[in-house]
Amino acid sequence: MARIVMKFGGTSVADLDRIRHVAGLVEAEAKAGHEVAVVVSAMSGETNRLVALVDALDGDTDNADTIDDEYDHIVASGEQVTSGLLAIALRRKGLKARSWLGWQIPLMTDFAYSKARISGIKSPAMDESLKSGTIGVVAGFQGITTDNRISTLGRGGSDTSAVAIAVALKADRCDIYTDVDGIYTTDPRIVKNARRLDRISFEEMLELASLGAKVLQTRSVELAMNNDLPIRVLTSMAKDGEPNPGTLVCNEVNDMEERVVSGVAYSRDEAQITLLRLKDKPGMVAKVTRAMSDANVIVDMIVQGISRSDNAANLTFTVGKRDLEKALAALNASKDAIGFEGIKSDDNVSKVSIVGIGMRSHTGVAQTMFEALAERGINVEVIATSEIKISVLIDSEYTELAVRALHAAFELETA
Amino acid sequence: MARIVMKFGGTSVADLDRIRHVAGLVEAEAKAGHEVAVVVSAMSGETNRLVALVDALDGDTDNADTIDDEYDHIVASGEQVTSGLLAIALRRKGLKARSWLGWQIPLMTDFAYSKARISGIKSPAMDESLKSGTIGVVAGFQGITTDNRISTLGRGGSDTSAVAIAVALKADRCDIYTDVDGIYTTDPRIVKNARRLDRISFEEMLELASLGAKVLQTRSVELAMNNDLPIRVLTSMAKDGEPNPGTLVCNEVNDMEERVVSGVAYSRDEAQITLLRLKDKPGMVAKVTRAMSDANVIVDMIVQGISRSDNAANLTFTVGKRDLEKALAALNASKDAIGFEGIKSDDNVSKVSIVGIGMRSHTGVAQTMFEALAERGINVEVIATSEIKISVLIDSEYTELAVRALHAAFELETA
Repeated sequence: MARIVMKFGGTSVADLDRIRHVAGLVEAEAKAGHEVAVVVSAMSGETNRLVALVDALDGDTDNADTIDDEYDHIVASGEQVTSGLLAIALRRKGLKARSWLGWQIPLMTDFAYSKARISGIKSPAMDESLKSGTIGVVAGFQGITTDNRISTLGRGGSDTSAVAIAVALKADRCDIYTDVDGIYTTDPRIVKNARRLDRISFEEMLELASLGAKVLQTRSVELAMNNDLPIRVLTSMAKDGEPNPGTLVCNEVNDMEERVVSGVAYSRDEAQITLLRLKDKPGMVAKVTRAMSDANVIVDMIVQGISRSDNAANLTFTVGKRDLEKALAALNASKDAIGFEGIKSDDNVSKVSIVGIGMRSHTGVAQTMFEALAERGINVEVIATSEIKISVLIDSEYTELAVRALHAAFELETA
Repeated sequence: MARIVMKFGGTSVADLDRIRHVAGLVEAEAKAGHEVAVVVSAMSGETNRLVALVDALDGDTDNADTIDDEYDHIVASGEQVTSGLLAIALRRKGLKARSWLGWQIPLMTDFAYSKARISGIKSPAMDESLKSGTIGVVAGFQGITTDNRISTLGRGGSDTSAVAIAVALKADRCDIYTDVDGIYTTDPRIVKNARRLDRISFEEMLELASLGAKVLQTRSVELAMNNDLPIRVLTSMAKDGEPNPGTLVCNEVNDMEERVVSGVAYSRDEAQITLLRLKDKPGMVAKVTRAMSDANVIVDMIVQGISRSDNAANLTFTVGKRDLEKALAALNASKDAIGFEGIKSDDNVSKVSIVGIGMRSHTGVAQTMFEALAERGINVEVIATSEIKISVLIDSEYTELAVRALHAAFELETA
């Protein structure tokens, strides 16, 4: 017997038929003898409906008083409804079940309304309830502040609350049901023979998640890794009786598949900025990154160009595409302070990455990657590496070609 | 400066335009220097939408496990949304405001989910908040049980929660905004020159409420009377600047208008049952009322017919029209135990009543009433009286005629 937390997103509980289907999935785990807590999102569309109500009111005036606490108060009602409905659907199957709201658990957060972070969960009452064989149905995405008001973890925060609840409940596993049946070697829409991975390490998943594979939120993977809680990603759309093994995200273990590269990720949300003829003196890069962080712009890849005879250099880095204008404005405002002569920018770039824990102990990975790209005539603008990944910035037009080339070069289509 | 609780029902907050209008009404009281708490219902239609979701799931099986706790958990979300929206609308007018849920106040109730009764309200936090000049926007209709779960006070329970909150906050007055502009001498749809009352006593209002005038819930009036809290009934539909005095429901005071009869009420939800040739022996009526209460049927008017030479009598009483079949089944099942020979029933009857605190000290009221009815050829089947009301049961066809005759006979159209 294990204790399992199951998490279902908005499309998995989109209507009463889907909720009944979810009740069947939960029933199967409960009948297998497990203690089960379920974390649910709002029915899809519901959060948008509530946000639209708030936005319509909020557009009334220029009064800039914060309304984030009331926003959370309103939006949290979506998960409240779903959690109650699923509890009823489970009771109608003859199971013991009850719903839990963030404040009832309680799931404590900080005061960053609408994007709160979890500060702690202690739930002796819920622990007791699960031990007694009652399925707990938790409204995801919400918590409570120390002044007794509802907070929400931000859009999509229900992965994170599911993992946090699983950690707090000392669950053996957190199963995240979604609209795909696991983690793939790359995006199956680009590579037809992309393969579902049976297992992947936390670190690889973190790299993939932050590199643009949108299956799991980065924060939820970090939290699971820090607490050594295995996450299983699987589909909520499987028909009754169909096998649905998903992908297990867990610590690196001995029996993990022998492979060098686990996956190829890509992101089109990139923009490249080059500062021309920058004075090459100590602290110059720090001045640039300071200007960016002051403007709330996150700098990702960064590379310093070849030093020139006149003691000046080019500095190239990437930012999120939606931050490009903000970044350029901040740089131009600090032009003299930083000391550069010109700016070039390009938002027609993509980042393509290979990720694999095996890269730690294998050589020649970079060479295989660059040869595969060079053979297709793909020019690499910027390179960034970590212990378990290599990312390259390329012209956007070549994105799919690069992904396919790398997937084939590392033979990811075979088990 | 006074402390005022304002209550708005579902049609008053039906959409964002109505919510903005309500914000204007609240602003006026706040700007007059009052401390204001507002109690709101769900946007009209929202509770029905939520109930329909529950009903659709609940119809799945014959499993009779109670789901009332989850029903409350789900349905309470409607008021949650409205309270947040109104708080935002008030902030957008530059006012300080925040929302309060039942569990945040906390408003404690018993465990009768879906029809809970308030057991206590202690709200030092809300009291402090109001004193600091922050308008409190309370989600009506909901509370919390001692095991930390959401309860609701039953459909329409928001009048009662508004009054209870007003009592707990030691408010000077509870203003109940509704779709009519006050309490009338009778239904203006029947009597064109029915007149809005400036004031009415709690006792009269209680009689009118229980006799079918649906403006205020009986429980809310009882609660206000027991705590000597004046209620003002007024419309939420008045345009800006229009006078909107409403009707004040309060204790009988010296300057109350001199009048014998305050209003005429009617109800078509009645059915009449006559037990024929009942053995006239002690305890016979008790046997009948016991049979009815065992079947959860409330008996209203009751009258024993003229004793006959064979020591048998007829017993006539009224029940709610929707309980008639249940009542007849229960009576037939107890026919021998009670001891009667036959049953007649009629659901084509109405109850028409006059109510007035002045009846305590005036004679001739009954005579005026029966003469007015007799002049129109209206036959009275059953009569029931209390200190401040007289009710008659008549053929339904004559309802409007009787109401108009009594309204004229007591000159209610004049101030």
